[in-house]
Amino acid sequence: MSGIGVHKAAHKQYAATPPMGWNSWDCYGASVTEEEVLGNARYMAEHLKPFGWEYVVVDIQWYEPGALSSSYRPFVPLEMDGYSRLVPAVNRFPSSAGGKGFKPLADVIHGLGLQFGIHIMRGIPRQAVHANTPIQGTERRAREIAANNICPWNSDMYGVNPDAEGAQAYYDSLFRLYAEWEVDFVKVDDIAASRLYHIHHREIEMIRTAIDRCGRPMVLSLSPGAAPLEYGGLLAGNANMWRMTDDFWDVWPLLKDMFGRCEQWYPFVGNGSWPDCDMLPLGHIGLRSVDGGASNRQTRFTPEEQQTMMTLWNLFRSPLMFGGELRDNDAWTLSLLTNEEVLAVHRDGRGARPLYRREDRTVWTSLAPDGGVYVALFNLGDAPAEVSAELAELGLAPGTREARDLWARRSLGRVEDGLRFTLPPHGSKLVKLAPEG
Amino acid sequence: MSGIGVHKAAHKQYAATPPMGWNSWDCYGASVTEEEVLGNARYMAEHLKPFGWEYVVVDIQWYEPGALSSSYRPFVPLEMDGYSRLVPAVNRFPSSAGGKGFKPLADVIHGLGLQFGIHIMRGIPRQAVHANTPIQGTERRAREIAANNICPWNSDMYGVNPDAEGAQAYYDSLFRLYAEWEVDFVKVDDIAASRLYHIHHREIEMIRTAIDRCGRPMVLSLSPGAAPLEYGGLLAGNANMWRMTDDFWDVWPLLKDMFGRCEQWYPFVGNGSWPDCDMLPLGHIGLRSVDGGASNRQTRFTPEEQQTMMTLWNLFRSPLMFGGELRDNDAWTLSLLTNEEVLAVHRDGRGARPLYRREDRTVWTSLAPDGGVYVALFNLGDAPAEVSAELAELGLAPGTREARDLWARRSLGRVEDGLRFTLPPHGSKLVKLAPEG
Amino acid sequence: MSGIGVHKAAHKQYAATPPMGWNSWDCYGASVTEEEVLGNARYMAEHLKPFGWEYVVVDIQWYEPGALSSSYRPFVPLEMDGYSRLVPAVNRFPSSAGGKGFKPLADVIHGLGLQFGIHIMRGIPRQAVHANTPIQGTERRAREIAANNICPWNSDMYGVNPDAEGAQAYYDSLFRLYAEWEVDFVKVDDIAASRLYHIHHREIEMIRTAIDRCGRPMVLSLSPGAAPLEYGGLLAGNANMWRMTDDFWDVWPLLKDMFGRCEQWYPFVGNGSWPDCDMLPLGHIGLRSVDGGASNRQTRFTPEEQQTMMTLWNLFRSPLMFGGELRDNDAWTLSLLTNEEVLAVHRDGRGARPLYRREDRTVWTSLAPDGGVYVALFNLGDAPAEVSAELAELGLAPGTREARDLWARRSLGRVEDGLRFTLPPHGSKLVKLAPEG
Amino acid sequence: MSGIGVHKAAHKQYAATPPMGWNSWDCYGASVTEEEVLGNARYMAEHLKPFGWEYVVVDIQWYEPGALSSSYRPFVPLEMDGYSRLVPAVNRFPSSAGGKGFKPLADVIHGLGLQFGIHIMRGIPRQAVHANTPIQGTERRAREIAANNICPWNSDMYGVNPDAEGAQAYYDSLFRLYAEWEVDFVKVDDIAASRLYHIHHREIEMIRTAIDRCGRPMVLSLSPGAAPLEYGGLLAGNANMWRMTDDFWDVWPLLKDMFGRCEQWYPFVGNGSWPDCDMLPLGHIGLRSVDGGASNRQTRFTPEEQQTMMTLWNLFRSPLMFGGELRDNDAWTLSLLTNEEVLAVHRDGRGARPLYRREDRTVWTSLAPDGGVYVALFNLGDAPAEVSAELAELGLAPGTREARDLWARRSLGRVEDGLRFTLPPHGSKLVKLAPEG
Repeated sequence: MSGIGVHKAAHKQYAATPPMGWNSWDCYGASVTEEEVLGNARYMAEHLKPFGWEYVVVDIQWYEPGALSSSYRPFVPLEMDGYSRLVPAVNRFPSSAGGKGFKPLADVIHGLGLQFGIHIMRGIPRQAVHANTPIQGTERRAREIAANNICPWNSDMYGVNPDAEGAQAYYDSLFRLYAEWEVDFVKVDDIAASRLYHIHHREIEMIRTAIDRCGRPMVLSLSPGAAPLEYGGLLAGNANMWRMTDDFWDVWPLLKDMFGRCEQWYPFVGNGSWPDCDMLPLGHIGLRSVDGGASNRQTRFTPEEQQTMMTLWNLFRSPLMFGGELRDNDAWTLSLLTNEEVLAVHRDGRGARPLYRREDRTVWTSLAPDGGVYVALFNLGDAPAEVSAELAELGLAPGTREARDLWARRSLGRVEDGLRFTLPPHGSKLVKLAPEG
Repeated sequence: MSGIGVHKAAHKQYAATPPMGWNSWDCYGASVTEEEVLGNARYMAEHLKPFGWEYVVVDIQWYEPGALSSSYRPFVPLEMDGYSRLVPAVNRFPSSAGGKGFKPLADVIHGLGLQFGIHIMRGIPRQAVHANTPIQGTERRAREIAANNICPWNSDMYGVNPDAEGAQAYYDSLFRLYAEWEVDFVKVDDIAASRLYHIHHREIEMIRTAIDRCGRPMVLSLSPGAAPLEYGGLLAGNANMWRMTDDFWDVWPLLKDMFGRCEQWYPFVGNGSWPDCDMLPLGHIGLRSVDGGASNRQTRFTPEEQQTMMTLWNLFRSPLMFGGELRDNDAWTLSLLTNEEVLAVHRDGRGARPLYRREDRTVWTSLAPDGGVYVALFNLGDAPAEVSAELAELGLAPGTREARDLWARRSLGRVEDGLRFTLPPHGSKLVKLAPEG
Repeated sequence: MSGIGVHKAAHKQYAATPPMGWNSWDCYGASVTEEEVLGNARYMAEHLKPFGWEYVVVDIQWYEPGALSSSYRPFVPLEMDGYSRLVPAVNRFPSSAGGKGFKPLADVIHGLGLQFGIHIMRGIPRQAVHANTPIQGTERRAREIAANNICPWNSDMYGVNPDAEGAQAYYDSLFRLYAEWEVDFVKVDDIAASRLYHIHHREIEMIRTAIDRCGRPMVLSLSPGAAPLEYGGLLAGNANMWRMTDDFWDVWPLLKDMFGRCEQWYPFVGNGSWPDCDMLPLGHIGLRSVDGGASNRQTRFTPEEQQTMMTLWNLFRSPLMFGGELRDNDAWTLSLLTNEEVLAVHRDGRGARPLYRREDRTVWTSLAPDGGVYVALFNLGDAPAEVSAELAELGLAPGTREARDLWARRSLGRVEDGLRFTLPPHGSKLVKLAPEG
Repeated sequence: MSGIGVHKAAHKQYAATPPMGWNSWDCYGASVTEEEVLGNARYMAEHLKPFGWEYVVVDIQWYEPGALSSSYRPFVPLEMDGYSRLVPAVNRFPSSAGGKGFKPLADVIHGLGLQFGIHIMRGIPRQAVHANTPIQGTERRAREIAANNICPWNSDMYGVNPDAEGAQAYYDSLFRLYAEWEVDFVKVDDIAASRLYHIHHREIEMIRTAIDRCGRPMVLSLSPGAAPLEYGGLLAGNANMWRMTDDFWDVWPLLKDMFGRCEQWYPFVGNGSWPDCDMLPLGHIGLRSVDGGASNRQTRFTPEEQQTMMTLWNLFRSPLMFGGELRDNDAWTLSLLTNEEVLAVHRDGRGARPLYRREDRTVWTSLAPDGGVYVALFNLGDAPAEVSAELAELGLAPGTREARDLWARRSLGRVEDGLRFTLPPHGSKLVKLAPEG
């Protein structure tokens, strides 16, 4: 194993708590427009910002003028500047006209008190390579820095050859542009778990370096998953968040499966490193996305499943990226995002870990800064089941703790020996045991 | 993934710092005698105890009267009590005569101010199963709790069927006996990485439970490796240390390879959880062991390699289990074990992580409790090479730190921009950067 | 790859056509009795012998007096002679009393004009190893020739160490005994595809040698499957038949799956080498077997599926081992075994190969010795479908051939361009195109 | 496994015996010129044609004007006609000027009494896809039939999407062009064993269909290897030869390794189906190729190794494609290609199979049409060793056969019990046992 590269630490302060925001993918696939982005940003500023939500992220192919859904049009021409860098399609992002890129949109979002994020694909446009266009800051041209490797599910880019002179210069030129646009968050795709080539760790490192050099503290998010566990250290040493799973959608088996992934990754959570359970497919989704085996719909998760998802994501401290059209939120959906007692678990919990997994019952726990103990109980089975957490298992003395149901925001009284709930199928309970005394 | 079992936390206080001790395997294979154990224990009490060394561990097959080396005699009869439990071979451990087991030996070791450990194989003796002998504390007999699975490299035991009634009772009876013997440390083998069956996680959990029930806080060590990374959480949740590698011996490729393993496991280090680089094959080894491709010898590691190994084990905070015949230590070997400045890195370092790996040069770093920074620099190549660590890479301001060479115990003066050493092949340097000021 | 061993050819004449017979497993699991064997043998002699059926095979654990079903009792004592060889349990096989073994039963079966077969497990009884009993023809004892490897699904035996002195002598002693019993067919299990250890090719070769030395031309059948394709040559060079699949039962997915296996193995068919699709779970099965997810029943295959299975097995030239209680056959079941036109395909076909596989439609073809062409058409889908075979695809001129439906035993008239049938779900058609002219 | 496609048989007559010829790769990499091709063709016509050598094959990238060696220049423009089809680079193949393609060159070669072959890469030129150029015989254009998959080691082509309308039309148009050029042999690369995508079986089938439709009986050769054994039937059902190995070069480990591959593939040999051991890197090679870890050289194989290779390739009936610059052949090299007794084994042998493999000694055997038996004995070890073949192992009666050393062309006299030779390291002997009598 030669060359795992640099494990950096400075970037960890860019995401001191797990990022929270909105991303256009679950609604609009590759086709979101400026107006839709702004609409969701304004909703966030009004309804969610006080609860900690801040990132507004434009997902894949903002440079593809003909994008209509989540289905990519293979091999089509893309909008590109004179330095082999993709730029926003003006028909979709009118404010970018005149070569202004995403700067005007970012300005508006910053003006709302929010942060602006974009998605990019690892690599250099194939059209640049075949046309052999220039790269800013180097005499090398596109053909010379391209690698003969591809993304298996999108035909926009070739990889960048990390051994080529000019390769780092290319990535530096990209992030210099994004810094000019005042981007705050970059989600890089086809990099953490290529289906063809495992992880592209050297391109991760080039991107880390490019961000460090660009002078703007952008949060770095890596996709897709499942990122390989054996690179956990490298991921923490270069990124703020990385996907533990392939794309997550609103079907129960994927949600149930996430528990096993969290059991593997929980030791990596914390200090600016956030293994990522992926987006929250809640509310109104699929407006133009046709992924996940469905189209325009309300989330297919039942209310119980929605609460279970939110409970796991919050306790595990996954990033929270809402996938629905925010402006169509109903009260229930909004309530899942604005429960301050639950969000405190996400923001302040420490040392989250599984307490046990026994068949379809599982319990997770973390510590509150005030000496309290968070306990999340889950019934992953298809029938109602009693799920319990004994105080002794938690290392707590009997009869010493008051319990509170955080979703219901009500007291459960003093706990004698343990917590014990009959939970509905796919159901959960999130409890705080108060500090002793 | 059903049933990953309980992730416990209480046992973590049993090994607040990574265990340090001596183990009989590298010298004596399966054949160590009481006199040899005591000889090494007395040496430890006299020369090493003040530096934190405390465990004296009798490795595999203390119940095999005919064991002569590290080569097991397949299918031979073993010493066993009336409850299907293996007991010390009296010809090798005379103090165990009269059914006293290891209690008398443990008493002597405790009297020296040290801790006593034993090795066991997962499972129940095959001879008990074929003879269908009783188990203490249950009506079930050996045949009823055995599983039809084996260790591929030793023919002593069958596995225990975790679904069988009486299975937990059997493990409880084992650790009840070890508690009576006043054992402080148990190394369980064929459990963390069976070559035939992956990890035996349910037997790990039964053993965890049995220790918790026995009333004595024994350190739990799991072998062999490489333990599967995806069970890292489970391992931390049930054991104090577990092997990251198959048996480690005194050949450079194994040592070089350990760096890659540490890069994978470092997020798991700390709080009573110690990924284990395996024993230290130093000094006089192979007296009766014939493993590792050699026999009776001084360690084949060069002095540079020995220091490299000690540097990595200490900075990574691996358990330190010396494998040589302590009484034959020369001054150099002893010096590797008794450098207080180095041992402070092992005892007090926090947040150990690789800074980078570039081809055959790698640097690790951790934090000292006083605000200092530990930096370990390694040349893994076969030619001399300059290895450096820039202060900027470490997140430190230029010109702010005094450096000290911990192995040489001498000051290196103020560091301007970074550390920079020309290291010999396979060589290393361990430096402390003093707190600012 | 060192030592793939001997590829022999002489044994191929022992099974000039693929073996046909009855085996006790699908009905009686491990528990068949002498009376049941004889009852089925008498039925075969009367109803099936004229059609080529000849082998009567006693499956696993005839040495286990307490066997009651297909569920093995782990670690129980077995009937064994003084040379570590298992012998029939007298309570189940009364004629074996007085140390006569299977000779009296074989005599009766031979008297019916049939052949007698037994099943054995690779290896040496574990009870022999732990008791270290003698082996005929060598000074070595059981402990010295045993290997520390096991069958994962049955606890009777240890493997035999091919490098041990006395190992070949042990297998020689086994087959010497079977030759004394006048056994004609031996099915050796846990050898062609151990789930733990891949193929045990060196034990296969020892068994080949032992048969060659025993002086009796026994057919050698190897189980279980899926035997590894990369050992196809070795299997053909040492055995007469070997399993392409794990145990086959009366559920459609297993039958559908067999087509893919046949597509891989067909080049190996012929000249005394018979890749084996496994037993025919037809008629009344599961009397005491509880495998295959069911118990006492008529086959769960629909009539269409039964014909599909028989068509594939016959055209592919798999061995045909009937699994049902023959005495309970109804007329339909019997008709599947006694269609002489179909059995001619099995006996005389040459060069069987898939013509095509397109989604759920597939066609196989082979050549008749008279210049005719056999064509088997299958609909593997769950809806009716038209399945066709063009004469051009078969390399035949248009309008030159008369077709005959072999199952229906009736003419289909002259074929212009091709065969074309609308087949029911899971249905098939077996056609002979007559020689030109 | 849905859709393994058509297993055809008619093409098998195109290569009734394993093809023999010359290929430009081992000498000239991707850069051979018309003059060099013609020079080798003339040599073949004069020296080798009487012995059965007939194919002259231009290997990869004859459409790349700048090719200089075996190192491809990534992403460079290629010579292409108006229908997205690559055509010869006129600077390298002057006779192709004026759009005449390879027809003039083929004419010359045919005039010498030889056959003309070309190499192609699976797929459609990437430059065609990004320019979206037309395809002959369909309204679809390049972008519409391309698949987003690539060759990992060459950047010329994208794969063709077999589900796209126009895909078959594209391959039809290719082979229509090759038929116009009067090509006799096509080696298709990146298709039998892509390192990224396993086998591309549906493109194999499209190519089979295109050849069948083009009206010219071209031999179809598939590369690279190792082709997957589980597709052996499909390969035989669609191609004449396919590679059992990745590129073969003149180093002993690759040659030794070939024995294991032959042990797996020998059941597939015969009837127009030829598993391919790859080219013969003999004589003067590497003139402009830099593969195989070396450059311009005489073969690195020792004379013993050369004879061992020729013995295995001939007995196994691999295609024989000479890789050296024929005009530089010395007498020894020429003698390896022109021994009529050895070539009879290649042309007429039947039923080649390994007799045994014991450590580093192995023997192969096949049958001569006159009732003789061919025996090839090999010492694969690094020290001299006696290698033997007993008549009994061969199924022959003692004392019945005269032996002849085919390489030495001299009688070895009557064989009593077996053949027995002391062979030098890496050495071999090829013997014919005459028919009885």
